Amino acid sequence: MNRLDVPDEGVPEYEPRADRDAFLDADATRTMQPLPMLACYACGETVEAPASPRCSCGEPRWYETPPTAADDVADIEWPSDLDAGTWAFADLLLADPPADGLATASGGTPLVRTPALDDYAGAAVSVADEGRNPTGSFKDRGTAVGIEIALAEGADAVGTVSHGNMAMSVAAHAAAAGLECTVCIPSDISDERIRHIGRYDPRILRIDGDYGRLYHDAIEAGAERGIRFINSDSPGRVAGQKTTVLEALAQHRRRTGMLPDAIVLPTSSGGHASGAYKGLSELQAAGLIDTDAKPGAADAMPRLHLVQAAACAPIAEAAARGAETVDPVEPGETIAYSIANPDPPSGTRALFGARETGGTAIAVADDAIREAKRRLATTAGLTVEAASATSLAGARRLARDGEIGPDEDVICIATGSGFKESVGDPTDVRTETVALEALSDAL
Amino acid sequence: MNRLDVPDEGVPEYEPRADRDAFLDADATRTMQPLPMLACYACGETVEAPASPRCSCGEPRWYETPPTAADDVADIEWPSDLDAGTWAFADLLLADPPADGLATASGGTPLVRTPALDDYAGAAVSVADEGRNPTGSFKDRGTAVGIEIALAEGADAVGTVSHGNMAMSVAAHAAAAGLECTVCIPSDISDERIRHIGRYDPRILRIDGDYGRLYHDAIEAGAERGIRFINSDSPGRVAGQKTTVLEALAQHRRRTGMLPDAIVLPTSSGGHASGAYKGLSELQAAGLIDTDAKPGAADAMPRLHLVQAAACAPIAEAAARGAETVDPVEPGETIAYSIANPDPPSGTRALFGARETGGTAIAVADDAIREAKRRLATTAGLTVEAASATSLAGARRLARDGEIGPDEDVICIATGSGFKESVGDPTDVRTETVALEALSDAL
Repeated sequence: MNRLDVPDEGVPEYEPRADRDAFLDADATRTMQPLPMLACYACGETVEAPASPRCSCGEPRWYETPPTAADDVADIEWPSDLDAGTWAFADLLLADPPADGLATASGGTPLVRTPALDDYAGAAVSVADEGRNPTGSFKDRGTAVGIEIALAEGADAVGTVSHGNMAMSVAAHAAAAGLECTVCIPSDISDERIRHIGRYDPRILRIDGDYGRLYHDAIEAGAERGIRFINSDSPGRVAGQKTTVLEALAQHRRRTGMLPDAIVLPTSSGGHASGAYKGLSELQAAGLIDTDAKPGAADAMPRLHLVQAAACAPIAEAAARGAETVDPVEPGETIAYSIANPDPPSGTRALFGARETGGTAIAVADDAIREAKRRLATTAGLTVEAASATSLAGARRLARDGEIGPDEDVICIATGSGFKESVGDPTDVRTETVALEALSDAL
Repeated sequence: MNRLDVPDEGVPEYEPRADRDAFLDADATRTMQPLPMLACYACGETVEAPASPRCSCGEPRWYETPPTAADDVADIEWPSDLDAGTWAFADLLLADPPADGLATASGGTPLVRTPALDDYAGAAVSVADEGRNPTGSFKDRGTAVGIEIALAEGADAVGTVSHGNMAMSVAAHAAAAGLECTVCIPSDISDERIRHIGRYDPRILRIDGDYGRLYHDAIEAGAERGIRFINSDSPGRVAGQKTTVLEALAQHRRRTGMLPDAIVLPTSSGGHASGAYKGLSELQAAGLIDTDAKPGAADAMPRLHLVQAAACAPIAEAAARGAETVDPVEPGETIAYSIANPDPPSGTRALFGARETGGTAIAVADDAIREAKRRLATTAGLTVEAASATSLAGARRLARDGEIGPDEDVICIATGSGFKESVGDPTDVRTETVALEALSDAL
């Protein structure tokens, strides 16, 4: 036994006071706004929710928010208070803000204006630091909304198919919501990532087989077993992922009075990019983005640019050949493993969305990613994962290619924290050893 | 060369537009409110700033904020908008909010109400997730303010003495501010922590010698060499550290209409605890905490409880023997290494502050810390470092000891992110390997 401590003999039972009702909402019935229709952006088919996340035409569905009636749309405004994070945009979500727990804690991430990166990027850079979500990535926004919808519909078990960030996010939110959670991972992911997921004690299945097929099979098999899979392009998740861009735009607008000219988003499955485009199109429907505004006007549509790692860039390859459809590729190795999906389930939709805003999809090489990651840390003080550094590397490439002008404002979405990634070789760090007595001379 | 990528040929020079003046503040002269006097809480001596951070009586000094004139104090109110994070409390700080960069991005961390932890803690728990600061710990609040003061005073080089979190924080903020940075670390800290610090590329000196003496020697030697050391109880840092508790109280009050009954704060050097107490006393001076209110009233003074790891608990040991002065101890090993300071420079002040609020200082054993850390992850979805889990373990012990009542609201300050700590043994994580074809049966 350590000094000062005594054996743990339990504690008196917690007894809430009557005047603390605000703290007693945990078991309140969850409320949900009536679910809108599920719609396919590609063929226009709409179906009542709940339904398959995939349209009969093969493309993914999303929720048709906001209601299309003009009087509802007119109510939507930029939130004056962004403290609620993801839930600051409740008007554009499908579930009411939760009363407590981890579900309340996603979003609210800072948009950091970083002049020190301007010369490198060739534009005025702001970084949306999504690593500051509860499990260290943007995924928490989509998980929070996806799980609230699942809970409101009575789910008692959830699952996901993921390489890392999404698995951590779903496992954490499920734990906090008291839900059983099953995580399906490829059998070859690193021990380090498994241990990060294991913190939240979900059931972890290492699956031998094709990852692209696993993504779809798990949703079907889960439905049979009463497990709601919240995968990267699940409609509820995509609804929550809208808020990354919505929040960043609201912050930019509050700071400068204007929307940014461009957004650069690291892209893997295309679910996040789909949410970003859906959010932009809803702002447009609500009149908060002006379709007719000239580029550079305060309320013009920001261009959504997608960026991938060159070694695994199916969406950028489709963009480069002018195709409408994203085809699977043979993946190469990249340090940006979080975005290395060779068969993105929402890839075609993501490319469609980017083009609708005047943006495109590009790829950057690992050397450029490494350099961008280093600069984010050593000149802006931001530690992001390699996949996130593609945003800055991408902005630089877009500036070089003339896609972003030298007088433009660009938001780089840093999707995840670098603290979950192993730090490089210790010999990279210069240290000197000095005796305390010699400190003054050494300084 | 990878597919799709082309060699990096540089970018057009960034050319800000005239209508984007809001983005051009980077080089503006920094403004600072006139520095108030430096004061000693113990002997009452005041001196004009800048001066030594230590009083002639041996105790640390802090800035006498807010101005004591009644008309100034009356202006101080709870901020209506907490988006500005650390700077939401600019009235109680010493520097004006910075225009951009990492300095704008500290604080704004969520207070998460976690009913799932109530039965374990024996009270109504909310967790302040300070790991969601830019470098993953509460240190960023103190660094942001400390560096703004240093910049306003014309410093062009800063330093710190740290085992880890503070070193990362100062190195990151210095990098973002374009300042030279020297980090002095004990020669025996782990490679992992050195690599985390190295991300921001400061000069790193491994010092052979007594850590307690290094703390003070570095401030003196640095002053001779033009290096401003921003150590754990530097007055500028302590000013920034006030905001951890100020923000958590504002969030609690907004949610429930009341202040919490108690705050449980992991404590090492005592600098954070000093800031917490200073913040509470300023709220009291401003009339936002009512000195005469009965315990449980909406605006009664919350009790500040300090918690240490039992293996290295100089402040708790002083509390246990009823002493006023904290003496150094021989440190034992603990998983809570971030708070294992055997000779805390602000220990006596921290204990004084806790007692002034009706709180105390206690210690918890590593087993209890480990269990609290596990529960934070598996029932609340929060990944905190071991040192931070002492807050929950401490709340449980305080409830057991009757220091926190079973109907009370307690805020546990989770000081740092768990993502920077190595995850435990991979064999702790249960996984099953399944062929894709067998997925449906396995679910």
